Order: sequence, then C-alpha cells, then structure tokens
Amino acid sequence: MTDPMPNIEGLVCPVPLLHNRQVVLGHGSGGRMSYELISKLFLPPLDNPILRAGDDAGVVSLPSGDDPHALRLAVSTDSHVVMPLFFPGGDIGRLAVCGTVNDVAMMGAEPMYLTAGFVLEEGLDFDLLGRVIASMQSAAHEAQVKVIAGDTKVVQRGKADGLYINTTGIGIIPKMVNIRGSNAQPGDVVLLSGTIGDHGIAVLAARGELYFDAQISSDVAPLNSLVSAMLHVSDNIHVLRDPTRGGLATTLNEIAIQSNVGIQIHEDSIPVKPAVSAACEMLGFDPLYVANEGKLIAIVGKDHADELLAVMHSHPLGIDASIIGTVTDEPGQHVTLRTTLGTTRLVDMLSGEMLPRIC
Amino acid sequence: MTDPMPNIEGLVCPVPLLHNRQVVLGHGSGGRMSYELISKLFLPPLDNPILRAGDDAGVVSLPSGDDPHALRLAVSTDSHVVMPLFFPGGDIGRLAVCGTVNDVAMMGAEPMYLTAGFVLEEGLDFDLLGRVIASMQSAAHEAQVKVIAGDTKVVQRGKADGLYINTTGIGIIPKMVNIRGSNAQPGDVVLLSGTIGDHGIAVLAARGELYFDAQISSDVAPLNSLVSAMLHVSDNIHVLRDPTRGGLATTLNEIAIQSNVGIQIHEDSIPVKPAVSAACEMLGFDPLYVANEGKLIAIVGKDHADELLAVMHSHPLGIDASIIGTVTDEPGQHVTLRTTLGTTRLVDMLSGEMLPRIC
Repeated sequence: MTDPMPNIEGLVCPVPLLHNRQVVLGHGSGGRMSYELISKLFLPPLDNPILRAGDDAGVVSLPSGDDPHALRLAVSTDSHVVMPLFFPGGDIGRLAVCGTVNDVAMMGAEPMYLTAGFVLEEGLDFDLLGRVIASMQSAAHEAQVKVIAGDTKVVQRGKADGLYINTTGIGIIPKMVNIRGSNAQPGDVVLLSGTIGDHGIAVLAARGELYFDAQISSDVAPLNSLVSAMLHVSDNIHVLRDPTRGGLATTLNEIAIQSNVGIQIHEDSIPVKPAVSAACEMLGFDPLYVANEGKLIAIVGKDHADELLAVMHSHPLGIDASIIGTVTDEPGQHVTLRTTLGTTRLVDMLSGEMLPRIC
Repeated sequence: MTDPMPNIEGLVCPVPLLHNRQVVLGHGSGGRMSYELISKLFLPPLDNPILRAGDDAGVVSLPSGDDPHALRLAVSTDSHVVMPLFFPGGDIGRLAVCGTVNDVAMMGAEPMYLTAGFVLEEGLDFDLLGRVIASMQSAAHEAQVKVIAGDTKVVQRGKADGLYINTTGIGIIPKMVNIRGSNAQPGDVVLLSGTIGDHGIAVLAARGELYFDAQISSDVAPLNSLVSAMLHVSDNIHVLRDPTRGGLATTLNEIAIQSNVGIQIHEDSIPVKPAVSAACEMLGFDPLYVANEGKLIAIVGKDHADELLAVMHSHPLGIDASIIGTVTDEPGQHVTLRTTLGTTRLVDMLSGEMLPRIC
C-alpha cells in the first residue's frame, strides 16, 4: 500500500482534489468526499502508522510482562449525530454503543470499555435524555462492556439537535488474531452476515421521507458475540468490517484498495429485505450504498468459509448470512458485481452524500 | 465514601434535587448542577466502580504477563464546545488535546494515545479547520501523544458553532503510583502550580465581554511533563487535579468530599495575575471559580512539599507554584479560605453557571 489510509472508516481511495473551500454535508458521508477531507486536511499533520493503517480501530501495543509489546489494544472513536434521535429498532444511545463496539470488534478484539461524551442542547427534556441513557445501558449490557468515563457539555438552544454522543471503545486483541483490512488474499471468500440497508431505510422512514409505512427496523446491534463465535472456530479470518456509512459497496472498495486486490460479488446472493428493496427503488437508492449498523463482512480463507457460514447461521445476528463473492487478483482494486441478469458492472465507492445524519 | 461519585470532573457533592425538567446551560458548568444531572440521570443506569471513583480519568487494569491485573490504564474523555474557537493563548484544537492529556496525567499516568471525534458544521471554512488541526498536532507533539483514531461527522448550517471536538486519552499508570481524589490525608500540604483564572478570563475577553483590553492569555498547556518531573522526586503525591470548569474552589470541594477531609487555603498565597483580578472585580467574579486549563493542584505528604515545590519552580509550567493550604481533619468536608484580612470564610462549589462554553 502506498496510499495514505487514515484510520477512519471509508477513507481509503486515491486522493482527489478538494472541490471547494468549505465543509458540505457530503464530507460526512463516509465515502469519497470524507476521504478527500481527511486525507487533505486531517492526515498530513496528524499522520502516524497507527492512524494510517486505515482500519475500523487503531491498534496499539502495550508492555506485558517481559514483552514490551505483548498486549494489543484496539481503540476506536465515533461521534453520533443521527436524526431523528429515535427510529424503529433503535435510538442514538443504542447506536453510540453498538457503533463503537462493532468498530473494536472488527479488529478481532474483545471490546471491554467505553467512554461517553455528551453534547446536550439547552432545553433538552430530561425524560428523553433518560431514555437515551437507559438505551445505552441496555446496549452496553448486551455487548458486555463498561462505561468507564464520561463528559457532559451543554450548548445553547438550536445548536445540537437535542444531543450528540461520542463514544470511544477499547478492546483487547487476543494473541494470534491478525485481522486487518489489508489482509484479503486472492482466492478468499467474502461472507456477509445478513440483509443490507435496514438501518438507513429505517432512519429515513423515521424522518417521514418514505411516504409509506415501510415496517423496517434498524439492524443496530453489537456484533462482538458473533465475532467471538467466528474466532472460536477459525484462525483463518483475514478481514472483518462493518458496512456502515457508505454501505457494502464503499466498504468492499476500501478493502480492495487496502489489500490491493479485486473483489467480485454476486447480486443474487446479497440478501435485501423486500421492503428495503421497495423503498430503495422508490427513492432511487442502491441498497449497496445504504448504511447498516448490525452487519459484518468477513473475508476468509476458502477452506474455512463453510464452517464459518454454519457458525454465523447459528447466531441470532447471522441467520441470513451468505457467501456473496470472492477475492480476485485483479490488479485495479476494483469491486465488480455479477448482476441477476448475468452482466457484470463496476461498483464504486459512494461518491457524494446520499443520506446525511444517518449515524 | 458513601456518596456516588461519577467519574466526571466536578461531580462529587451530595445529591440535590433536579429543579426542572430540562437541560439548562448551568448543567454544563462543572459545578453543583452538573453533578445533579449526572448523579440523577447518568450514573444510576451506567453505574460501576470505575465510573463511580470520581476522578479525572477512569482507571482499568489489564492483564500483563502472569498477572491478570498488572497493567493499569487511565482513560478520560472530554467534548469541547468552547466559544469562540480561537482565543488569546489557544484555540479549540489545543484545548481538546491539552484538556484530555491533563485529565489522564492527573492520575499520575503517562498519556500516550488520543482519539479525536469531530462534529463539523456545514459551511465551515477549510482554512479555519486546517488551523485547528495544525494546533492539535502542535499540542500533541508538545505532549508527546499520538492521535490513533478519528471520526468526522457533518451537521447542517447553524448547528455546532463551527465545530465540536471530542478527545479521549489513554495513559499508562506507572507501577507504585497511586494517585486518587480520595487519597488526601489530614496534615497534607496543598500545592498549586501557578496563577488562577487565566483561561476563563482570556475566553471572555475573546468574546468581547470585558470592554477593555485585558492582555490575558489562556494558560492552556499539557501538564504531563510537569507531573512526570514531580513523580520523579516524590512517591508521596496523594492527589493531583486540574482545576478546570468550576475553578480552584470547586476542585478543592470535590477532593474534600472524596477524601472526607477539610481543606484550608490562604488567600494571600494564591497567585492571581493583576489583570485577571481586575477583570474579575469588574465582572463580579471570584477568581476561585474561574476555569484554568494549564494548572494543577497537588496534595502531598508534608515532608515532600518543599522538594516538590522546588521541582515545580524549575519547570516552565510551575514557575509561580506555591503552597496554598493544608488538609485538615475537619469532619464537614469543608473548604475554608483564610482571607487577606485575617477572617475565615467557607468556600463552596460553583453552584450555577458562571461562564458557559468555556471549554
């Protein structure tokens, strides 16, 4: 890899130019514009190998016993600004816990501790805030993580849409586990843990932007127990990644670039709920780009794929798991989709902003 | 200690009732109202011993070699919403790095890693953002910490006042170091590293609220090298705390409650710059309650006080250090001030909001 790859999801494509002089909503998309912003403005001054690795969490080594680098931690941070604060299947509190737990888990780490930083808007109702905190507690309990430090700031009316929540997560990476976005190898198999697009469409529905009752719930959930079950049966998991902002398409593009490989996926093997599919068709969205908050992609050695798929199927969060494609040695780092019609098309990263404030 | 003490600065007084049903600016003061909010809404659902300890950072033990709890980390998080973004002596970027570095250092830990989560306002100028990031880099270099993970979200125009920055810090606590807010003992000596009130008054001046040119710069600075120098000469430092929101008075009250002791301080030994003193007099502020961002309080064994004071004097950030008081066995957990007139008065926590959006 020669491209700089900041440790911020969705930011691993070649560097385009900054097209204007101001931040726009598209810079928060998790796609190409986010990368542009980060790679031009954030990374050059803050650059270091840990940040540059481009994974869902930074990996640091700490001294342990006689070995000064024996204990590896995965550390990830996410600020959550989702609108509305409550949506079918979740809320900003559950999202803030699960989003960070999942980023830590995607390094194969066992998430242990969270911090929580709140920016509260003056006038925020205590009952609403209490519901959000209760939801965080419930999600933290589900993920078996402890909140160990917090901070609360208050800003004037009109400034924070109720509240924003930052969470930072710390997990321990078990010895022998080596999961990185740069580890995909030609011949590997691509697994997806379930249906795509549920979170994005559920949030959109909660905003009243669907004009019909989609009956779709967000998939927001902590994936660490699924990861743990997978690690239990295989030491041949090369990459884990949760396809959040920018969706499955953007995440696969990131991995292709990090690992310098091609990835081919098959449209008919990618599970999409009929209601999500219908909503996307109506809105002109491609579900490949719609955010998920409780799904993972696993890129694994071919010989381990079936066993891992079986383990995923036996876990509540992997019931709809499927093998969706393979890693190729195609040199252009392209992601291609074999459509249900039998044609093949290129699948690029999300280029602009599709759904602002989705997480 | 029987009072619940969340691990959020300034939140260790007995529990009063919530006076209304909504968040107001005073809940962000770091004083009594913040405690009220946290202790009633945040702590009960999220409660655990680490969070409840009530120090500037949460302390967790990790396995190291044969010992499953040998490696201790201090972890702290802070969201920064200061207005304006730039002020004499600093900016939101420098503040975001130093604030979190200092909270980690106040556990006697060596700060090593930071995460940075940005909430950016649509329309934010890239040049301004670039200056903030450059300032973060400069402060991180000064503090010898690495930014290892980041996140960027974008919100619509009119939200977030340009940008908010969350930083979370991780540091390693050296073996043998045991510094806690609950460790102050009767007979201990209270050291203060320099003048108080500089940060709060500098921010106020930058807002144009002083109506005269105060020529005051914020003291915002990373205190970890000062802490390191102090630890080098003494193993008898019981408490370290940086008096930020709520000022020296609130911080001393927190320690008195955590340690179940009284604290007596002497007005004539507390250094205040003449310009800060003049600004406070004009505005009706007591400098004891004005925020600092580059000062620390150390509560130390009496026999080590002189040696520690000498070390502080030899460090650029401790030139104006002084012994400001002593810890007593007074049972009411009161902080008292011996005034320059020879009278004694009670010094309570900050009760409402004095300076909103100060950090």
